[in-house]
Amino acid sequence: MSVHDITYDVRMARWEPDAQNRLRDAALTLFADGGYERTTVAEIARTAGVTERTFFRHFADKREVLFDGQARLQDAFVGAVTAADGDAAPMTVVATALDAAAALFPPERRAFARQRAGIVAANPGLQERELLKLATLTDAMADAFRRRGLAEPTASLTAHTAVVVFHVAFAQWISPDEQRSFADLCRSATEDLRTVTAS
Amino acid sequence: MSVHDITYDVRMARWEPDAQNRLRDAALTLFADGGYERTTVAEIARTAGVTERTFFRHFADKREVLFDGQARLQDAFVGAVTAADGDAAPMTVVATALDAAAALFPPERRAFARQRAGIVAANPGLQERELLKLATLTDAMADAFRRRGLAEPTASLTAHTAVVVFHVAFAQWISPDEQRSFADLCRSATEDLRTVTAS
Repeated sequence: MSVHDITYDVRMARWEPDAQNRLRDAALTLFADGGYERTTVAEIARTAGVTERTFFRHFADKREVLFDGQARLQDAFVGAVTAADGDAAPMTVVATALDAAAALFPPERRAFARQRAGIVAANPGLQERELLKLATLTDAMADAFRRRGLAEPTASLTAHTAVVVFHVAFAQWISPDEQRSFADLCRSATEDLRTVTAS
Repeated sequence: MSVHDITYDVRMARWEPDAQNRLRDAALTLFADGGYERTTVAEIARTAGVTERTFFRHFADKREVLFDGQARLQDAFVGAVTAADGDAAPMTVVATALDAAAALFPPERRAFARQRAGIVAANPGLQERELLKLATLTDAMADAFRRRGLAEPTASLTAHTAVVVFHVAFAQWISPDEQRSFADLCRSATEDLRTVTAS
């Protein structure tokens, strides 16, 4: 390995996170302007000023630009359920899991989330992928609640409760003019759900 | 119109429901045995002893054999919400809607529902279609609750509550050896959900 190679690697390492963000920005702009179906990986890479090979170092395909947060979201949810006190009430665990998930959606991610939601809403295949993501998350949460000793159907109902609150609060968070934080919206939706089910 | 035509129409009218049931039975057997993807409409019609034209009088395509109950299910749910007393509490309306939906799943439908669920579970495309069906149902229910004057996010949370109970109770209803009625399972899951959210 030459000195040149080492210098190159260091530069790449420093430059890569920026490439990922530029690829994501380029993809979202192209999806929004020209349509998701018609946009190619070659165009995304060209617009971001990188090679296609660099694109594929960051994303498996163009759909993954929109869905690469799934693993982190699921880890946050399931990790919080697994780490919670063994004798914590189901809704206490749900609240902890929602806080962990909300930490992935700071204010600076709201603009991206809004743009992404518009692209997903315009494409039936992406909508189905989004629903599958939430169903997979619900199944993983139900597993985690069963591992805590909850029986069925309580484990599934608790998992669904967490994901429904997340889903409804998320729709609010990305709605036009909404200013409240994602964590606040989750807490507020949880209270509303309690009121509904007690009615 | 000749006497022959009238006789023919009367015979058709009497015979058609039987054709529909035979087509459904044939389709489910073929989907289960040879796989959903590989089964053709021609095979389904041949196995049921009818023409392809008769198949298309009953179903738009082979997928509709599995999903033609969606409209009736949605009508039952939304109709119950619309017909409920204006001042009934959200969960009272949810219970009425679940009773209306449960009426579509009498004991004699359980064998079909179990066989259908196995086919859907084996095919990712059908699973996505099933999730889309539930999401569409949830949206229609949220609309109906907004028409009753519920604000957001309460309307969406109430709609999700009804569909989650339906979804979880349905999974129990079709599980092996389950004997309880669908209506009983809905009532029991509703109580469990109340306990979870109050915890």
